[in-house]
Amino acid sequence: MSDVRLSDLSTPCLLVDEAIMKRNIDRLSRYAASLGVTLRPHLKTTKSVEAARYVLADEYGPATVSTLAEAEIFAEAGITDILYAVGISPDKLDRVVALHRAGCRLIVLLDSIAQAEAVAAASKDSGIAIPAMIEIDSDGHRSGLTADDPALIDVGRILNAGGAELCGVLCHAGESYGAIGRAAQAVCAEQERRAVVDASDRLRDTGLPCPVVSAGSTPTAHAAKDLTGVTELRAGVYVFFDLVMAGIEVCDVDDIALSVLTTVIGHQTTRGWTICDAGWMAMSRDRGTASQRVDQGYGVVCDESGKVIPGLIVIQANQEHGVIAPYPKFDGDLPDLPLGTRLRILPNHACATAAQHQHYHVIPVEADAPLASWRRFGGW
Amino acid sequence: MSDVRLSDLSTPCLLVDEAIMKRNIDRLSRYAASLGVTLRPHLKTTKSVEAARYVLADEYGPATVSTLAEAEIFAEAGITDILYAVGISPDKLDRVVALHRAGCRLIVLLDSIAQAEAVAAASKDSGIAIPAMIEIDSDGHRSGLTADDPALIDVGRILNAGGAELCGVLCHAGESYGAIGRAAQAVCAEQERRAVVDASDRLRDTGLPCPVVSAGSTPTAHAAKDLTGVTELRAGVYVFFDLVMAGIEVCDVDDIALSVLTTVIGHQTTRGWTICDAGWMAMSRDRGTASQRVDQGYGVVCDESGKVIPGLIVIQANQEHGVIAPYPKFDGDLPDLPLGTRLRILPNHACATAAQHQHYHVIPVEADAPLASWRRFGGW
Repeated sequence: MSDVRLSDLSTPCLLVDEAIMKRNIDRLSRYAASLGVTLRPHLKTTKSVEAARYVLADEYGPATVSTLAEAEIFAEAGITDILYAVGISPDKLDRVVALHRAGCRLIVLLDSIAQAEAVAAASKDSGIAIPAMIEIDSDGHRSGLTADDPALIDVGRILNAGGAELCGVLCHAGESYGAIGRAAQAVCAEQERRAVVDASDRLRDTGLPCPVVSAGSTPTAHAAKDLTGVTELRAGVYVFFDLVMAGIEVCDVDDIALSVLTTVIGHQTTRGWTICDAGWMAMSRDRGTASQRVDQGYGVVCDESGKVIPGLIVIQANQEHGVIAPYPKFDGDLPDLPLGTRLRILPNHACATAAQHQHYHVIPVEADAPLASWRRFGGW
Repeated sequence: MSDVRLSDLSTPCLLVDEAIMKRNIDRLSRYAASLGVTLRPHLKTTKSVEAARYVLADEYGPATVSTLAEAEIFAEAGITDILYAVGISPDKLDRVVALHRAGCRLIVLLDSIAQAEAVAAASKDSGIAIPAMIEIDSDGHRSGLTADDPALIDVGRILNAGGAELCGVLCHAGESYGAIGRAAQAVCAEQERRAVVDASDRLRDTGLPCPVVSAGSTPTAHAAKDLTGVTELRAGVYVFFDLVMAGIEVCDVDDIALSVLTTVIGHQTTRGWTICDAGWMAMSRDRGTASQRVDQGYGVVCDESGKVIPGLIVIQANQEHGVIAPYPKFDGDLPDLPLGTRLRILPNHACATAAQHQHYHVIPVEADAPLASWRRFGGW
C-alpha cells in the first residue's frame, strides 16, 4: 500500500475526487432505478478497471465500451456483459468471436444490410449466435437508421434468420450535447425514446424479437421524464462530468470530479499571463466550450484544494505550456500565483482529458488518507 | 522478427512512412549543416527511442525534450546530451539532479530570477553545476525575457555566481506557425536570430559566458537564410510534418510521413457521409487548420496506399467515429467507399495525433518488407 499524498505528485497529472465521483454515480443510479430501466454505464470515459468497479451494478456488468481493446481488458477483469457501441466492421468479427469464446457476451452494433450479412456469416462460421443491436437515429447526429427506414426490417431479418441473435435497438441522442437546460434535454430524451420504441414496435410487428430497447447519453439520461418502452439507459461522462456538461446545465461546476494538477512555471507580467505546466498534452486539444455561452478556454483554474479561483481560465495552450489569464472582460481581483504554485484545472471534456494520461490519482473520501492510483489504458 | 503486413493491422492505428520520414530528416540535416549550426532535434513529436535513432546525429544526442519523462527514458537509452525546453519549476530539480547523477547532461530552461535562484540553490546543494539556458522572447508568443530586459543580466549573474552553469540563450519563434510562406517565415527566423544574438551580446558584454545561442522552430529552421551568431538550431515536427505545416507552406502534403489507418464502418447516404473508425481518439482534437486558408477538418483522406483522394476530408469526429465527406464546395467525382474499405487520414498536427497512440507501425522503405513496430511513450 502506497502512502502518496497530493504534495508528492509530480505535475502535470490527473486527479479524481472520489467523493464527487461517487455522488455523480449514485445520482444517476438512483434516477435510472426510479425510471425503471437498467443502467449500462459507458466505460469509455474512465477506461480503468478500478473505476469500472465503482460504476457497474454487478461484477460482470452490464457495461458499454467504445473499442475492442476496452472489451478485451474489461473481459479479462471478469466483466462479461458488454455492449460495443460503435458500428462493427467485418474485419473486427474475429476479435468478437474470440471474446465470446473467452466467456464474454459481447453485443455488437450495426445499421446496414452489409454489416448484418457479415455478422450472420461470422455467426454461422463460428457456431456462436453473435448478439447484435440495430442502431437507430433520432436526430441526424451520426449513425443509425431512422425508425421508419425500410432497411430496419431487412437488417432484423438477416440477423434473425442468418444465425445471429437480434437483441434489440439502440439510440444515442448526440444532438443533446447542444441542448441547453433540462427542458431542452428532456425534449431530446423523448425524441430518443420515441425513435427506439417506434423501431422496436416495427420489428415486433413483423414477428422479430426485440428484447432490449436501449437509449441514452449523459444529457438525456439525466433529463428523461418517462422511459416507457425503454429497457436500458446508457451514459458515460457523468461519472466525472466536465465544463461542457456544466455549460449546458447537466451538472454544476462543483460536480466535476476530474482535474489536472499543475505547477506555475513562469509569468509574462506585462501581458498578465501566468504560465503553467498543463499544456494541451495534459488537458487535450478539446475546446468544447468554445461554442458554448461561456468559452472556458482550455479549462477553469482552481487552487490546489480544488476551489475555483473566480475569473481565471487557461486562455491558450501549447504542448507543455498553459497560459493562465482572466476571462476577457473580468475586472475583479486576482490572486498572486508565484513560481511553484500548484493549481488544478477543470477540463472541457473529461473523456478527452483523461485520454492524455496513464493514471488517475484518486483523492480519497477520507481526509488525510493516502491517494490511490488507478491505471488507465488506451489503444484499440 | 515479426512479419506484420499493412493488411494485418487492426484499425485505427498509426502509420509512419519510413521513406518520407528519412527524406524530411535528411533535408533539414543538410540545411542546418549548410547554415553552419548544430541541429538539436526536438523529440517531443516522436517520443520513441527507435524514432530518435533516425533523427539524432550521434548516439548521445544532442536532443531537445518537452518533459522530464522524455529525458528519463531517452537517458536510459543512452542519449545523454538533452535540453529540457520548458521552463523549470523548483519542485522538478530533484529529478534534474537525479538525471545528472545517472550520467545525463540535462540542460534546463528559465526566464526569471526566482527560477535562477532555485537552480543555483539546487546546484549548491547537489554539488552539480546544473547547466541552464535563459529563454528569450522574440515575438510575444509565450515565455522568455526580451533581449533588452534588465532581468536578463540579473538572471545570468545569479546562475553564474551561484554555482550553476550558464550555458547560453534560447529562443523559439512560436508566432512563425502563423506566418504563411517561406518569405514570411524568413522574417520570423531573422527576428528569432536577432533576439538571441542580441541577448548573447548583452551577456558577454557584462563578462558573462554564453557559449550556446539556440534558435528554432520547424518553420524558421527551414526558412532561415543566415544564422550568424547562432550556434544551434532546434525543430521537432519536421520529422513527420502535418497539414498545419503544409497549410503554411513549410512542406507539401506529400511530405507528411504520419497517418492514421482507418476502416469504413457505415454510411449516411442521404447526408453524403461515410463513417470510419478514426474519431478524435485516433486523430486527436487538434483542429489547427481551422484557422488556416483551407480548413482540413479532422484530416485529409487517402486511400490505403497513402494517395490523397481529392475532395475528401474528415468533417467531424466523435470519440471513435470520424465522418468523411467532401469539402463544402467540392463538386468533383467521389469514389465508392463500401463497408470495410481501408483508408489513411493525414493529421492536422503530428505531435497531437501521435500522442493518441502507443505504437508506430512503420511502412519500410523496401517494398514488400514487413512493418516495424516502434513503441511510443507518454506521461510526465
